[in-house]
Amino acid sequence: MNVLLIGATGDVGQAIVQELSSRHHLIQASRATSGSNRVDLRDSRSIYRLLEQHQGLDALIVAASEPHFGPLDQMTGELVREGLEGKLLGQIDAVLAARDLLADRGSVTLTSGLLGEACIRYGACAAAVNGAIEGFVRAAAAEMNRGLRLNVVSPGLLESSTARIGQYFRGFDPIPPARVGRAYARSVEGIETGQIYAVR
Amino acid sequence: MNVLLIGATGDVGQAIVQELSSRHHLIQASRATSGSNRVDLRDSRSIYRLLEQHQGLDALIVAASEPHFGPLDQMTGELVREGLEGKLLGQIDAVLAARDLLADRGSVTLTSGLLGEACIRYGACAAAVNGAIEGFVRAAAAEMNRGLRLNVVSPGLLESSTARIGQYFRGFDPIPPARVGRAYARSVEGIETGQIYAVR
Repeated sequence: MNVLLIGATGDVGQAIVQELSSRHHLIQASRATSGSNRVDLRDSRSIYRLLEQHQGLDALIVAASEPHFGPLDQMTGELVREGLEGKLLGQIDAVLAARDLLADRGSVTLTSGLLGEACIRYGACAAAVNGAIEGFVRAAAAEMNRGLRLNVVSPGLLESSTARIGQYFRGFDPIPPARVGRAYARSVEGIETGQIYAVR
Repeated sequence: MNVLLIGATGDVGQAIVQELSSRHHLIQASRATSGSNRVDLRDSRSIYRLLEQHQGLDALIVAASEPHFGPLDQMTGELVREGLEGKLLGQIDAVLAARDLLADRGSVTLTSGLLGEACIRYGACAAAVNGAIEGFVRAAAAEMNRGLRLNVVSPGLLESSTARIGQYFRGFDPIPPARVGRAYARSVEGIETGQIYAVR
């Protein structure tokens, strides 16, 4: 399959590369990528441009964008609106681009996360974003045309992320990255749609 | 208690009025209300103004704002952003205003809905909104100061709404409004926080 991965350089993205790159033609894109595969989830035109460049894609995976973290007592309406941009609205923009540009019977796989189900300090905005993504996927999957499928993977704390962000997730079981990678394979290579694959 | 209800004129609002008005001093506000209790969830200043006007509130309930409905194949990034304004961002704005202005140990009760858990045609944006509200409430409740509580009621299709919107919810069991009203009473008069009260 031709698979486009947005967010290839992150911890989750690297787990997906490990799982899929040997079996598929995997195009890796991210904000940190140089050249024509650079993409920023906060800029919907860059998402459309990337998909137009790679016609005939069988699968789009979005694993990019850290959610916004911030204490509730300093939260403002403006910060909340900004916090929704990349991970929530960027992923919805990616679904809309895929709706128009993916090959028939292709699949879109988004990424939510454990916040919302589990709570950590400063995670209210991230929880809102994850809840929104999961609600959107369940409902939008049922309205996709051309046999397109839409799922979401909710990864827990990856073992490969503990050095960087483990301090915010004390007591959470770290997940082997390979397990997270397999959840994306299940979405891309399976037949299900409207599913939330939680890896805990 | 002094209870402020935003969205008093809707079907859910009327169920809340029936349940609470005999036991509490219930201030009714809405977009359709004339005079100083007029409030528009799409205008955060109007929310702050309303709460400043009624100092010493023990409870804020938000039951206003219908979500945005629209077919996925005509959805755009702009429509999604607009669709988040009232019911999602307006309710978060209301929580932030309550965080600053409610009496100590007061409660905030928001409103989500069954979309997201159940799907109907054209409901993808509404599902995103409901998922976001529930994720936010679970996480933000744990960060509220001054003993403030935060819950959300997820009403099903009310019997009193079937004439107006029942055609979109064929096969869903209509809920007696009194059951929905009691869920708000449980949030306002109980001691729980971070809860989702689903009325099905």
